[in-house]
This record gives sequence, C-alpha cells and structure tokens, in this order.
Amino acid sequence: MGDQNSRTRRRGEELINAIHTAVLEEVVEVGVGRLTMDGIGKRAATPRSTLYRRWSDPVEVLLDALYHAHPVEEPTLGADDLRGDLIRALQLMVSWTLSPAGRAVATILTDPMGAAKMSEPLQERVFANRGGTFTSTVLRHYAERGHFPAERLTPVVTDIGEALVVKRLLDGAPPSNADLADFVDQAILPAIGLGPA
Amino acid sequence: MGDQNSRTRRRGEELINAIHTAVLEEVVEVGVGRLTMDGIGKRAATPRSTLYRRWSDPVEVLLDALYHAHPVEEPTLGADDLRGDLIRALQLMVSWTLSPAGRAVATILTDPMGAAKMSEPLQERVFANRGGTFTSTVLRHYAERGHFPAERLTPVVTDIGEALVVKRLLDGAPPSNADLADFVDQAILPAIGLGPA
Repeated sequence: MGDQNSRTRRRGEELINAIHTAVLEEVVEVGVGRLTMDGIGKRAATPRSTLYRRWSDPVEVLLDALYHAHPVEEPTLGADDLRGDLIRALQLMVSWTLSPAGRAVATILTDPMGAAKMSEPLQERVFANRGGTFTSTVLRHYAERGHFPAERLTPVVTDIGEALVVKRLLDGAPPSNADLADFVDQAILPAIGLGPA
Repeated sequence: MGDQNSRTRRRGEELINAIHTAVLEEVVEVGVGRLTMDGIGKRAATPRSTLYRRWSDPVEVLLDALYHAHPVEEPTLGADDLRGDLIRALQLMVSWTLSPAGRAVATILTDPMGAAKMSEPLQERVFANRGGTFTSTVLRHYAERGHFPAERLTPVVTDIGEALVVKRLLDGAPPSNADLADFVDQAILPAIGLGPA
C-alpha cells in the first residue's frame, strides 16, 4: 500500500490498462488457480481496494482484460475477397496467440484445472462477445451477402480454421502464411461449398 | 534395488509392459523435463540397470511405450463405408485421449518445454510409424480404391479430424459421437470433394 500516494495520478483508462497488463502477466506466471487480487495489485502497483471497487474477484479482472485485448477480424469493405479475408483472419489469430492475451489463454486452456474452470466463461464472456471464433465474422459477412448458403455456417465449420491453427501450435510448428492459405483452400472453402470441384 | 530378487521372474513382455505402464504414469506426474531412469525404475520396481540394458535414456523409454500403446484404425474390410470408418477412427482417437498413453501425450504437448523437446520425435517415431494422424489410414485406404482423388489427401486434410477433436477437448467439452459425425460430414468429406453440393 506504500505505493498508493505516488500512484494516485494514474486514473481511468491508464490505470485499467496497467491492471489488465498485470493480470495477463500474473496468470501466465502463477496459473488461474493461484490468481489473487493481491498478486494482481502488487504487479500493477495498485492497492487491492482499488481492484475491488471495479471487480468482485481475480477471475473477473482476467475476463475483463481478455475481453478488451481480443481482436476481431474485419472483412475488407467494398472488396469481394472471401479467401483473402479468411487468410487475414487466421493471421490475426496467429498474432494474437503470440500476444500477452493469447499466451494467457494458452496457459489457462492447457492447464486441466484452468480449462475446467474457465472454458465456459471464456467462450461466453470473451469469444462470443467478440464475434465467436476467428473466421466467424468474415464467414457471416459473406454468407449474408449470398456468397454461399448460410446454413453451411455450423459450429463445426466456424471452428475449422482455429482448430487447424491450434493443432499446428501444439505440434510445435506455428503455421506460416502459406499454411494458413492451405487451411483456407483445402479445408474452410470446401466446407462452405466453395472448394475445388 | 531391494526388489530385484523378488522380481526376477518378471521377464520379457511382462516386464516391458510394467515399464511402459510406469513411464506413462511417471511423465503425467512429473512432466517430461523431470523424467529419469530412477523415477521410472522405482515406479516399475525394476533396477535402473535393467532399463539401461534396453534403452539409452528416459525419453527412449517414453517413446517406446507410446509407440506400443498407439492404436491404428482399421478400415472395415469388404464394407464400402468411408463415412462410418472415419467416424470410428475419430472415436478411436477420443478413447485414446482418455487412455494412459493419450494423457501422457496431452501432458507432453501442453507443456511448452515438453512440446519443444518432444514434438518432432513424437511425430516421427510414434505417429508416423502408426499410420499418421487418426483418419489418415482410412482416407488412404479409400483413396487407393478410387473413392476420391488421392491428390486431395494433403497434410491439412488428414489433420482436420484430429484438429477438431483437440479443439473441443481444449474447449472443455470432449466431442460426442454426434459431434464426430458432424466433423466427418461438415469438414472431412467436403475437403475430399464428397460433401454436400
């Protein structure tokens, strides 16, 4: 608490950013099971009481940080480039996996305890509120414009790109841009009926 | 080493099975970075010297155990049932992920140190020698019989089923048989040109 006076000038967005940064670092270091308001506060040089004014527990801080850090792909406006937009959506995912938020999610989901506790809140409060899986926003955009039948957009189909990226990461070889183009050409486009005949 | 005399009757296959069981349990408990001949030997009630007669280091024991435990799907002989055989191949994968060998592989690949050290030997010495990914053996069988063009069998396409299973496991919801059928109908079959039009 000795830091409190020297820190009172950090307010609003700046303070929240510092706390978000702190919780993402803290969860990678200690795991979601040992995440505490104390640990987050120390790392952000902020008293615990400040955290409790905004969040009820450390998992709430974590979910808020992950929500704010989560990127959403944007279809290229005016362009008619489903394939390019899908590749860019997967590139965005690969960049995100290397960011503090992506590393935090990897830590959470590869820890059996963390996965059991966090999978549902992650899905519902972070990913679903950010457009669903990577590629989902782009796919919906083009389905709405009649590029392929919307009924092809099942939960399996919107999972294909992410699933292939995750598998390559677990196999120890993060996918290159050429790999991402192959995922689009050989798996995603055929699944919506736009593959090679 | 006190156990040595009472254990001399365990020979050949029985002893090797005990050592394989021990190394799979040991790696889940301590991680691949802390796997030692001592730890494996204690768990198998076998002197270290016995282990060194057959294997040069603990990772060799682990790879041998994983190779022997790895299931390979078999296409239904005489039947013409690509879809059913693909679903059964993915069911075999789901069962394997719940087995001691599958849990050992999950422990290895979700630990960043373990993944860096073991991804390549796992691919080359275990999976490749057991037919590749789950679904690969079935897909090759039907491609060879002309059910679809063999050039559709790319590394991406033979990864789709495993990737979707792994993603669901990380999402915290092991796939049901209905989910596996959806993976086949909505992702794998379209990728080989056999999906809905």
